[in-house]
Amino acid sequence: MGAVKNKRMPRAVREQQMLDAAVRTFGQRGYRSASMDEIADLAGVSKPLVYLYLNSKEDLFTACIRREAVALTAAVRAGVGPGLTADRQLWEGLRAFFTHTAQNPDGWSVLHRQARTHGEPFAAEVAAMREELVAFVTELILVAAREAHRDPSLPEHEVAGLAEALVGAAESLAAWANATPGVSAKQAAATLMNFAWAGLGGLMENRPWSPPPPLDSHG
Amino acid sequence: MGAVKNKRMPRAVREQQMLDAAVRTFGQRGYRSASMDEIADLAGVSKPLVYLYLNSKEDLFTACIRREAVALTAAVRAGVGPGLTADRQLWEGLRAFFTHTAQNPDGWSVLHRQARTHGEPFAAEVAAMREELVAFVTELILVAAREAHRDPSLPEHEVAGLAEALVGAAESLAAWANATPGVSAKQAAATLMNFAWAGLGGLMENRPWSPPPPLDSHG
Repeated sequence: MGAVKNKRMPRAVREQQMLDAAVRTFGQRGYRSASMDEIADLAGVSKPLVYLYLNSKEDLFTACIRREAVALTAAVRAGVGPGLTADRQLWEGLRAFFTHTAQNPDGWSVLHRQARTHGEPFAAEVAAMREELVAFVTELILVAAREAHRDPSLPEHEVAGLAEALVGAAESLAAWANATPGVSAKQAAATLMNFAWAGLGGLMENRPWSPPPPLDSHG
Repeated sequence: MGAVKNKRMPRAVREQQMLDAAVRTFGQRGYRSASMDEIADLAGVSKPLVYLYLNSKEDLFTACIRREAVALTAAVRAGVGPGLTADRQLWEGLRAFFTHTAQNPDGWSVLHRQARTHGEPFAAEVAAMREELVAFVTELILVAAREAHRDPSLPEHEVAGLAEALVGAAESLAAWANATPGVSAKQAAATLMNFAWAGLGGLMENRPWSPPPPLDSHG
C-alpha cells in the first residue's frame, strides 16, 4: 500500500522526504554514524532510490546543509520587516533566528556541528551561509547607525567586527539553548538582545565604553 | 653540527620543538594537507623520531590541541588580575584573549578551525576548553552582578546564556581579526568590550532592554 502511494509522488516530493529523513538522522546520530540504510528506512523508500536521487552519502549531506542554510537565512530575513526601528529589527531578527533553530534542532545540529566537524567541503558550505548572515547583520547595524547619527560615523571595520560578534554570539547561544532544558527561543533571543542592544545602543548614541587608564605606569 | 647539538637536548625540549613545528604546519596548511615529513623537517628532526615521541599524526594533532588550549586559557586567566572592578576584569580578559590569538594565529587556527573540522575526538578536545572558558566568564559575570546589585538577582540561566554569547562573540571576532589586515588585538578587544559591556553594564544596573509591544494585535 505504501508502495502504491509512493509511486504517485513526484520526484521533488520524494526528495524532500529523503532530505527530511537525512537531516533528522545526521542531526541526531552524527554524519559518520548515520547509515544510508536508516535514512532510506526513515524516508520509507529503498536505499537504491536514495542513491539514484542523491548520488552518495556526501552529496546527500551537502544537499541537507544547503537546504537547511537556505531555510535559516530565509527565516531571519522574513522576520525582519521593513519600516521597523533599528532595535525592533534586531529583536525580530533574533526572535526569528532562535525560533527557527529551536523548531529545527536537527537542522541546526547539521549546520552548526555536523557540517563543521567533517571536513572542508562541508565546512565551506556553512561558511558561505555565515558570510551571508554577517553581511545581513552588517547592513542592519549600518542602517541603525545612520538612523541614530544622521551621519554614518561608525568606522567600517568597527561595524564589520560588531556583526561578527553578534553572529558568533547567536550561534553559540542557539547551540546552548537547544542543549539546555527550559530555555525557550524567546528567552534566548531576549538574552542576546539585552547583551547586544544596550551595547550597540550605547555605540549608536556615541556613548562607547572607554578603556580605563593603565593601573600603573610600568604595566 | 645540528645533530650534535640536538643530541644534547632533553626529550621535553625536543618535543616542544616538534609541537611548535606541528602547530605551525597544521595551522597554516590544514590537518589533512600537513605531512609528517614537513613537520619533521621544520622541527629539524627525523620523521621516525617524531613517531617515536608522539606516536601518530592523530596523537601529534591531539597534543597540539591540548598545548594550545592550555596556553590560551592560561593567558586569559593571567590577564584577569584579582581586585579589579568588573569592567576592568572583562577588559583585561578580552585584551589577553585577543592578544594571545593575534600572537599565536596558527595555534588559534588549530583550536578554532582545524580541531573542529576533522572529526569528533578533536572537536571534543576543543569543546572541553570552551567549557572551561564559559565557566570562567560565568563566574566573572556573577561577581560583577553581585558587585552591582548587592544581591545576585540575575537568574542563573541568564548568566549562563550571557557567558555563552560572550565566548561565541569572542571566538568569532578573533577569527575575523586574524583574517582581516589592519585590525589589532586591542581594536578587536575594544569592539567586543563596547558591544558587551554597555549591554552587560545595562543589565548590571537593572536596565535591561525591554521587548517592544507587538506591532498589531494579531501579530
